[in-house]
Formats: sequence, C-alpha cells, structure tokens
Amino acid sequence: MDKRVLLKKDMKEKQELVNIILDRYLPRKDEYPKNLHKAMRYSVFAGGKRLRPYLTMLAYEMYKEEAEAITPVAAAIEMIHTFTLIHDDLPDIDDDEYRRGKKSCHALFGEGEALLAGDALLVSAFELITLAEIKPELRVRFIRELAHECGIEGLIAGQMVDIESEGKKVTKKTLQYIHENKTAKLINLSLRFGALAGGAPANELAALEEYGNYFGLVFQIVDDLLDIEGDPAKLGKSIGKDEQVQKATFPSVWGVEASRKQALELTEKAKQSISKLGDKAILLDALADYMLNRKS
Amino acid sequence: MDKRVLLKKDMKEKQELVNIILDRYLPRKDEYPKNLHKAMRYSVFAGGKRLRPYLTMLAYEMYKEEAEAITPVAAAIEMIHTFTLIHDDLPDIDDDEYRRGKKSCHALFGEGEALLAGDALLVSAFELITLAEIKPELRVRFIRELAHECGIEGLIAGQMVDIESEGKKVTKKTLQYIHENKTAKLINLSLRFGALAGGAPANELAALEEYGNYFGLVFQIVDDLLDIEGDPAKLGKSIGKDEQVQKATFPSVWGVEASRKQALELTEKAKQSISKLGDKAILLDALADYMLNRKS
Repeated sequence: MDKRVLLKKDMKEKQELVNIILDRYLPRKDEYPKNLHKAMRYSVFAGGKRLRPYLTMLAYEMYKEEAEAITPVAAAIEMIHTFTLIHDDLPDIDDDEYRRGKKSCHALFGEGEALLAGDALLVSAFELITLAEIKPELRVRFIRELAHECGIEGLIAGQMVDIESEGKKVTKKTLQYIHENKTAKLINLSLRFGALAGGAPANELAALEEYGNYFGLVFQIVDDLLDIEGDPAKLGKSIGKDEQVQKATFPSVWGVEASRKQALELTEKAKQSISKLGDKAILLDALADYMLNRKS
Repeated sequence: MDKRVLLKKDMKEKQELVNIILDRYLPRKDEYPKNLHKAMRYSVFAGGKRLRPYLTMLAYEMYKEEAEAITPVAAAIEMIHTFTLIHDDLPDIDDDEYRRGKKSCHALFGEGEALLAGDALLVSAFELITLAEIKPELRVRFIRELAHECGIEGLIAGQMVDIESEGKKVTKKTLQYIHENKTAKLINLSLRFGALAGGAPANELAALEEYGNYFGLVFQIVDDLLDIEGDPAKLGKSIGKDEQVQKATFPSVWGVEASRKQALELTEKAKQSISKLGDKAILLDALADYMLNRKS
C-alpha cells in the first residue's frame, strides 16, 4: 500500500481509539452540572485532528504492539490541547468567536462556563494519566514532564509572551520562543511519551526528539501560512485575523516566501532525523510530508 | 501551654515552611516571561492563611515526625486554592477588583495575564506533587484524587453551579452541593492526604474525614456570615457583595440566626468526631474553635 494511503488509514483508526477513550472518560452531557460537561464535550469533539495523540500512539507502536495501554496518555494530551484552545479564545486573550468553523466554547456557553470547562479539561488530563496501565514511576514522570512543559517553562509561558507581544514588532528570537513553547513542546512531548512508554533505546529516542523539534516548527509555520493564504471554508476560521491584530507569526517576521522555504527545509531535516530508524519510521516520514502539504 | 497559644504558634511555624517551599519552587520574579511569574507570586503571597496546607501538615504530624516530606503536597494544595481565587475574580466569573484588601490579580496584571497565571498555578501544583519524597504509588494516588475532586466531580463543578445560580433563588440542596464541592472537598482532601501519607489506620482516617466534612461546612458558613457582618478592614473585601448579586450563601438560604446556630453545632460535631483520637488531636480540636470564632 502507498504510504500516504497507509497513513490516512492509520490516522483514522487511531483517531477513533482516542475518541472512544475521551467519550468513556468524560461525564455524559446530561450529568449535573450539565453545562460543564456539555461545554467540555463540545470543545473536545469539535473536529480536532488528534495530531498529538496520534504522535504518541505512533511512537509507541514503533516499539510495542497495540497502542491501547498508552491511549489514556494520548487522550490526556488532547484534553490539554483543547484546554489551551478554549482559554485562548476567551475575551481575556484572543476573543475569538469561531474555532474550526464552529462557535467557540465561550461564544456558545458563556465566558465563565468556558473558563471552567478549560480548567476542568486541564485538571482531568492529569487524572486520566494516572489511570493509564503503565508503571507508576512512568506515570509520575509523564505528569511531571507534562506539567512542567505546559506550565512555567512551556506552553503557558509561550502564550504569555504571545499576548504581551501583540501589537508590537517581535524579533526572530521572541518568535522562536513563542512557538517553541506554545506549540513545539507539547508536540514533542507527545512523541516522547509514546517512545518512552514503548521502551525506545536512547539513541532512537534522541532521533525521535530531533524529528519532533523540526516537525513542531513546520506545523506552526504551515499554520501561520494557512492563516493568511488558506481557504476559510476549509480552515473554519477567519483568514487574516493574525495579521489584523499584528500577531507574532512566521510570515510577519520572516516574510511569506522565506517561511515557505523554511517549512520545506525543516520537513527534510525532520525526515532525515528518523531515516536511520528504518522501516518502522515509515509513517512518521509520511506524516512530515502530510503536515507540510496540508490545506487545513 | 494553652492550646490556643500552641495552635497559633504551630500555624505560624507551618505557614513559614509552606512559604519556603512555594518560594523555592516558583520561578523568580525577574525570570522570563516576568509578568507570568510576577502574577503567580503576587497571588500566592497575597496573605493567604495557608489553612489547607496546615491541615495536611497537622494530620501528617499526628502519625509521623516532622512534616517536611509532605510539605510539597501541602504547598501544591495551596497553589490550587490560589488558582481558584484568581479565576473566580476574573470578569468571566465574579469580576472582583479586590481580594484580601489588595488588588486582585487581573486588576493588577491584566485579564489574559491573570487567566494564564491561574492556569500555570494549577498545572504546576501537579508537578510539585511529583517532587514530594513519598512513594510513587502515593504520588499517583494523590494526583488522581486531587484532579478528580478539583475537576468534574468537585471544585470546578461546584463553581459552575455557583455561577449558574447567580441571581436565582437556590434550594438548600443546591447550596449544599455548591459548598460541598467548591469548598469542603479540597479542605477534606488536605486533611486526608496528610493522614494517608502519615500512615493513619483506617478507623482514624475515617474519624479525620468526618471532622473534615464538618470543618469544611463551618468554614464556609463563617465565611458567608463574615461577608454580611464582618469588618471590611479586617476582611479586606467589600462587605455585602454576595448579597448585592444574590449569591448562594448560608445566611441567604437559612437566615443569619440559623446559620450561626448551625456553625456552632457543626463545630461541636467536628470536635466530637476526633475526640476518640486522644491527645494527638488536640490542635485539630483547637482549630475547630478557632475557625468558628475567626473575625477575618
């Protein structure tokens, strides 16, 4: 089978596995207090690509069969990702009415409700990791790394610099800080957790992390490019919003052409990083191309 | 020494221990991004009584000497408590400009900044627990229970019902749900973690949990009463704010006299619960009286 076809099939299968875990874990919509659970479910099932959980499961299956033991960890990462989207959309931060072509959480449920739904997803992600059937030491390690890279030295720190850069001209160094922290670290961690739980040897773990670094950057550059050039129907958000409010993006700092060139070069580097892993990295290789060429 | 004097001395000592851990763990104010760390520190060191960590350390010391091993867990609980205060004060929820006589976090740092500082405290609390020098199994258990009782079946759920009850007449059942979840569960958990880590036998753990349930309720009733009767200079917030916006409080649902009577009765029940634990519960006994009679 062509590796692109194989990739699409595998992504779809693993998306479904993650969705099953999320559906099982999250309280029903009609459980009290209903609006909390409705809001959580609404955002979790709003059409996310499940990219981060996919990376976790893919890396795990490079070393162990059947990704089921790691699925709660993968689902927890998706919950954390969803929490960041809900809070970012709030009037306190980006004030976005739409996300993936649908009303954002607060636009539909109210601001206080969305704030709390985000909080609940963040806190519940940690509960979900404690339920994974992996060694207690590994669960503690994942929680520590995830909390660290999501908090004061990661995602939230990146978001803080992002909001404080709004309306200002940012340097390349600041842009790098924002994206490394806001995007790349969680993507990288997704891959790392899968590899660690799978038992990847140290040199292969290093290769996967190198891939993760490049991949995370490509993901963000393409995201920024799609924001100014993409098809609004496919993207599900207003095009050019980042530009209007002068956000720190790759095209605004590097220019469109240079950003496109960089995405291409970094994709090659990502693929190079895992070339020595042989056949078991074939889907990661295909995924790098897929991310570069995505239209939404 | 009189037990009230002993209690005050012990509270002060343990407050200092918790403050040391919090100060060591949180990044310096001048670390990048500065406003994130300034905002986190501002709210964490805004004069909290450290009641929850005190309960954890007190319960632990009933069974083991020197509460140092449990201090990171105690400090983590305080960080979670602080996260709830920051998010509650946001315009999305209560829109409070003041907290403990000082500007609230968002009033001083901005709404996006306060939102992120709250998020960062929540996520960092979990990191801090992974660093406690207790068995990995116990760390996993504490994280699971804390995440559960702070999230979809606890604190955040209670807060959701609270905001959705605003401006409505609430039933006694709803009021009980709000306070059980929003206040009592975290207080109870604080005591429980200390007792569990200390190695309390099952019957004593049960007695402590009974105490925790009563104590948590008294804490909330007194809080509500102080809001309508307290001295604003001592409380550091505007008196009667709960009344103005018709919040679900004990005095508004039960009446002032009945609330006061209930607080007294529940304090007696709390003390009764631990009477069989003998001398080692002397400070918990004194603490129940202290909470009932507090003026701020």
